[in-house]
Amino acid sequence: MEISFDHTTLGQRVLFGAGAAATNIAVALRDLGASRPLLVGGGHAAEVVDHVSEEFTVAGRVREVVQHVPAERAREAVALAQDVGADSVVAIGGGSATGLAKIVARDTSLPVVAVPTTFSGSEATDIWGMTEDERKTTGTDLRVLPRVVVYDATLTLGLPTDLAVHSGLNALAHAVDSLWAPRADPINRAMAGEGMRALVPGLRGLRADSADVRAHEEVLYGTYLAGVALASAGAGMHHKICHVLGGTFNLPHAPTHAVVLSYVAAYNAEADPDSEARIAEALGTPHAASGLWDLVREVGAPASLGEIGFTEDDVDLAAELATAAIPDSNPRPVSQDGVATLLRSALRGGGVRR
Amino acid sequence: MEISFDHTTLGQRVLFGAGAAATNIAVALRDLGASRPLLVGGGHAAEVVDHVSEEFTVAGRVREVVQHVPAERAREAVALAQDVGADSVVAIGGGSATGLAKIVARDTSLPVVAVPTTFSGSEATDIWGMTEDERKTTGTDLRVLPRVVVYDATLTLGLPTDLAVHSGLNALAHAVDSLWAPRADPINRAMAGEGMRALVPGLRGLRADSADVRAHEEVLYGTYLAGVALASAGAGMHHKICHVLGGTFNLPHAPTHAVVLSYVAAYNAEADPDSEARIAEALGTPHAASGLWDLVREVGAPASLGEIGFTEDDVDLAAELATAAIPDSNPRPVSQDGVATLLRSALRGGGVRR
Repeated sequence: MEISFDHTTLGQRVLFGAGAAATNIAVALRDLGASRPLLVGGGHAAEVVDHVSEEFTVAGRVREVVQHVPAERAREAVALAQDVGADSVVAIGGGSATGLAKIVARDTSLPVVAVPTTFSGSEATDIWGMTEDERKTTGTDLRVLPRVVVYDATLTLGLPTDLAVHSGLNALAHAVDSLWAPRADPINRAMAGEGMRALVPGLRGLRADSADVRAHEEVLYGTYLAGVALASAGAGMHHKICHVLGGTFNLPHAPTHAVVLSYVAAYNAEADPDSEARIAEALGTPHAASGLWDLVREVGAPASLGEIGFTEDDVDLAAELATAAIPDSNPRPVSQDGVATLLRSALRGGGVRR
Repeated sequence: MEISFDHTTLGQRVLFGAGAAATNIAVALRDLGASRPLLVGGGHAAEVVDHVSEEFTVAGRVREVVQHVPAERAREAVALAQDVGADSVVAIGGGSATGLAKIVARDTSLPVVAVPTTFSGSEATDIWGMTEDERKTTGTDLRVLPRVVVYDATLTLGLPTDLAVHSGLNALAHAVDSLWAPRADPINRAMAGEGMRALVPGLRGLRADSADVRAHEEVLYGTYLAGVALASAGAGMHHKICHVLGGTFNLPHAPTHAVVLSYVAAYNAEADPDSEARIAEALGTPHAASGLWDLVREVGAPASLGEIGFTEDDVDLAAELATAAIPDSNPRPVSQDGVATLLRSALRGGGVRR
């Protein structure tokens, strides 16, 4: 098979270790030559914040972090960073904390140290997002890519089990959907495969015992690689469908992703046997789609889109909007009829056969 | 198992496509905002050089490239780049061309576009080397990492078969030896695994038909990932032993690597079952070491170190020097006796049992 691709690897340092967040933030800041961080978030990690405050001059703090990065809050944070003469940004929190730090980095070029406390994967990407007048703008900018990511599995232990599982399933969707995304290539496909191999046992472990540090480590590690793969390859059919279901029909984010994923895998299975094999191998099942279905049901996804508010009346419009957005890279040709059939199957639920 | 590591990913763009070197060099230079490249090497790629010369102002040329980057030649190239006002360096050639471009980048901060014509893997690393008064100095510097690598399998087609196979085996040794190198971590181990999975069939393909472009593509792709893994993890026991055998006992580089590799894999097999499994999986054999032995013999390695000039009299000194250099990260504890036994086995040859 011919090998032809254009792959960009984003340079980044990752410090990974349970219980080592404070130490590793210090290592990261020192190696960046930074001593006056702006601290974003950290509400659930008081001990870590205390340690950082002892060893460095915290130039300023943004304690409260709001979802979807409202533009006004972002501007305040940028102004604060400049006013206090911060030389770096340390973001401790989920996607919203990382997201706010990214806007500060975009506008000030300060280096970001990201310390994730959820499985959002945002720390692995150069994508920023901001909301103004209820409209979300996004963009890519190398300056927003955190220079260092500090992963500490004891920081995700505090997540409620359902939230942890949903957040981890979201990461799994990043890995799976990157396989047929516009810039998918052998390198980011390998990263996605490695990510799935960690996420699958990690998710099962989280569901079995949400206090299992090893399971949190596996999910964090898999989340990172899934984020790297998504940042490199882009998003595919799955994310476009879920975006429409969330944006236009107001379906809840995490359960929507959990239900839709196996239907998309089933849709593409025959047209993309290599991805089918990679997913199945990570799951340890004979088929990708049915294996994904069993996994998401096992860890707690709803049985259908019908259960979470989607109706037959919504199918045609959703199919039309999604079809227009799904990238040409999708291995199986996409038609509005095909997407409508997929959505009807997911609406009824009950899983996929293969 | 606990996950704990400090991993640095080097940012780099890779443009991969057979027959596309000229086009992709142009893409690379334009996206770098460069228009006046210094051209290093290119002797075996006249057509590519012609294309680049048509589309860009070649500010200067270093046609002749010397092995091991003599300091005087390097200084001349740096001065030339400055005198002619080059805004980039395009290196077309093997490790020596890339190596010279790296010194220019180190001393001028110009971006390098590397176009490899062998399987040296140097283009994937931030390591430079230079020779002065017969002494080799090396170092790492982010500025020397090529910003873009352009891989074109039609450029390695010209390599004599034996040289191609030896160069490819060298890349395989990078991947294998990175598994137990000082900074080995889950991410660079995954890259090494992916590299081996491409190198093994590629090497067999090269030996079967050295004009097989697909085989060259597999080896180039595997070479890249092996180089990434080695740059990230460092070198391990294998490279330290081979360094002594080459440096102190003047054994030929490629055959030495080819013979020693499976003995090192055998030495570490029991102490590092995960690496053993990764190598065996890539080889499609039950055991790593015997699988490596069969592969290197199949593609053309000598049967023993004895055949290439190593003698029983050399064993003790070689073992002493190598033992001192082998990193503590080696999974099986290293003793001088252990290394001497390994070297005696490799001296007699005949392969490893598992």
